[in-house]
This record gives sequence, C-alpha cells and structure tokens, in this order.
Amino acid sequence: MIDLYTAPTPNGYKVSVTLEELELPYQVHSVNLTQAEQKTPEFLAMNPNGRIPVIVDDGFPVFESGAIMIYLAEKAGKLLPTDVQGRSRVIQWLMFQMGGIGPMMGQANVFYRYFPERIQPAIDRYHGEVKRLFGVLDRHLADHEWLADDYSIADIANWCWTRTARWSGVDPEPYEHITRWHRAIAARPAAMRGIAVPQSVDMTTKDEAAVKKIAETARTMVEMGKN
Amino acid sequence: MIDLYTAPTPNGYKVSVTLEELELPYQVHSVNLTQAEQKTPEFLAMNPNGRIPVIVDDGFPVFESGAIMIYLAEKAGKLLPTDVQGRSRVIQWLMFQMGGIGPMMGQANVFYRYFPERIQPAIDRYHGEVKRLFGVLDRHLADHEWLADDYSIADIANWCWTRTARWSGVDPEPYEHITRWHRAIAARPAAMRGIAVPQSVDMTTKDEAAVKKIAETARTMVEMGKN
Repeated sequence: MIDLYTAPTPNGYKVSVTLEELELPYQVHSVNLTQAEQKTPEFLAMNPNGRIPVIVDDGFPVFESGAIMIYLAEKAGKLLPTDVQGRSRVIQWLMFQMGGIGPMMGQANVFYRYFPERIQPAIDRYHGEVKRLFGVLDRHLADHEWLADDYSIADIANWCWTRTARWSGVDPEPYEHITRWHRAIAARPAAMRGIAVPQSVDMTTKDEAAVKKIAETARTMVEMGKN
Repeated sequence: MIDLYTAPTPNGYKVSVTLEELELPYQVHSVNLTQAEQKTPEFLAMNPNGRIPVIVDDGFPVFESGAIMIYLAEKAGKLLPTDVQGRSRVIQWLMFQMGGIGPMMGQANVFYRYFPERIQPAIDRYHGEVKRLFGVLDRHLADHEWLADDYSIADIANWCWTRTARWSGVDPEPYEHITRWHRAIAARPAAMRGIAVPQSVDMTTKDEAAVKKIAETARTMVEMGKN
C-alpha cells in the first residue's frame, strides 16, 4: 500500500493525479502546512527537506514530486515509456517543469501574492520569466498533441502548475495551444479526481474572500519560512 | 559520438563532469551566451527553451541538465543504480538540486550579483532559502558519505552548484559535512576535468576585476532576458 502525505498545492496535485491515472491504490494523509506539520521529526524522517508531497511505499519513503512521479510510473509501467528516446523526452519536459515552470511560477506567487512588501521589479522579473516559459510550451504544443510522444507524467507535472497561471498573475488566454492542451487534460476523469486530493482549491476564483484566505495562509508560511 | 553544447556555468558543468566520470567520448561546442548563441534557430531546434547545456547523441538531442545526466548515466550504466530503491534515492537528490538548490542559488545570484537595483528583501529571501537548503544537505551528509548509496549523478549535480556558494553570497564554512563532501569530490580527477569544460571560471576569486567581469556578463544577460 502507498501512503501519500500531501496538501492542496500544485506539487501535491502532481502526485495525486499520477496515482489516479495509474490506478494505484493509496491512502491519503492531509498535511496541515500552516501548522508546520511538514517540519515535525516524524515528517523529516520521511523527507529531510520538510516539504510535501511524500509517499511511503511499503516502508520506502520517496520525496520530491518529480522523483515520486518517476518512481510511480516505473512501478506501474505507464506514463513513462521504456524506449530510450521516448523515455528521455518525457524526462526532459518533466525537468523543464521541475527547474523552470515550478520555481518561476512559485517565485511569481511569492512576490505577486504573498510578500509583505510590493516589490514591482521582482514581480516584473518573474512575470517575464513565466511568460517566456509559457511561450516555449505554447510553441511546442502547436505541433505536438502532448509534451512527449503520448500523455505522460510530463503533461501532468506541467499542467498542475500552468493551470494556476492566473494565481501567479499571468493571463493564460493568449497561449492558444496551452489552452487546447489544458482542456484535453481537464477532460480526463483521473486528472479531475487527482486535483481534489486532499481537497480542491479553486485558484481561479474571483471571490475576494476566498482569494484573501488562500493568500493569507501562504503569506504566513512565507514569513515563517515554512514554505 | 556525443556533441556537448555548453558554457562555463553550474548547469553546464553538471554535464561535463558526468561525461568525464562516465569516460564517454564527446566533442565540446562552446556557446557564447553574451552573443545569445543559445537563442539562434539552430540552437532552438535542439532545445526549445534556449538554454545550455544540450547534448546531441548520434542525432538525438537532449536538453535540461538533469535529464541529460539521467540519459548519460543510463547509457553508460554507471552513477545511477538499477535497483528500484537505490535508483530512486539518486533521483530524489537530483530533483532536490533541480527544484531547490539550483533555482534558489540562481535567484540569489540574480538579486545579489546581477540585478540593476539592490533589493535587500529579495536578497534576504534567497539567502535565507539557500541557507535552509544547505542545512538540509549538511544534516544528511553528517551520516551519509554520499547523497545516495554511492557517488552518483546526485552528488555531481549538487556539488556543481553548492561549490559556488560564495558567489551567491553564502559562506559555506559553517557547513562542515558539506565541506568534507566538497573535498572528496574535488579530489576526483574527472570532476576537476569536468569543471574546466569549455573553460574554468574561478567563482571563488577575490580579484575585483575578475569578479566585476563575471558579474557584468551575467547582468547583461539578465537585463536582455537571455538567461
């Protein structure tokens, strides 16, 4: 049995969507980030970096969302091809999310939504970088149905982040190929089930009270260094 | 034959050190970043993200340094174990570098060294995050000789970045286990050969003219969005 320790964030959803797509049985443990449950000795024994998500597969802990996705896909023999080139194409676009989309959207969120001061040059830097990366994805998706040869963990990883573009302050509308690809993934029942684990958060909401609550929670974590 | 397109940066060195350790023959192509050679149509055909390093193995291009390392290690059958758990431990610490150490040291460099304005809260944020991540590595290395079971691509990836801590404005001295591990890797001839490809840059230099030249080059790239 796989135990999943997670919270409703893009990195958390990457793993719950993967588990749903692979149809692997798992048990969810919701981690309360505002209570710093990811910094307890018990949690640090699973992930010394003190971050969600983590899985424990029959006693073996795996941390870092990208590493968990590779582990699960190899375990199930799906969402990651075994031929050398097809497999590498998936890992290349997974790394593009791990080293690019994720960190840059994360920094955009920090300065656009959570930072105690409004530092416009920092906001501009990260909005610029996110838009550049969205351009790379959009041009690639113009003549590729999926990021690699078939639907894979690379699509899941990039989708879980790029679907929250508005939260980062970036309008996804101009990226027509990303929009087409978003719709195709959102039509998959497993993807929709995955982004409801441990619960769904509507980061596209325009409800001011809801936006304020999400931002306040994240701001507390940034200020306390718990992120 | 493997063609390597690279420049003297931590991400570039990750691949040249890996190639040297694996003893795979390769041909080096130095990419001039200040001339935006990584944004030419020829380069973008290899890596749509327009960044070094890239390898082309007998006509097959691979981009993203982390993906290249996995590709090369699997090709050579070294530096990445084949047993499920040992292999995952290497990939977990590789992802820790891809999503943590690399992006956070990169942002520290941007705000500490290259940004046109001095924005102290942004510098403090990234110095704080780099120190937190160094603490994670240091505690892990206190009772592990290497990051995973044996010397692996995870050590190479994290070493290529953490060895430049002073350039990011972080003093590595207090991290005694990182220091021990740095010395062990620096004693490997292949590692030293790798960080001289395509040329060596002494990012620990205290020579003011040299520091100024490195920073000016990087600043130009940040301002022109070529990074």
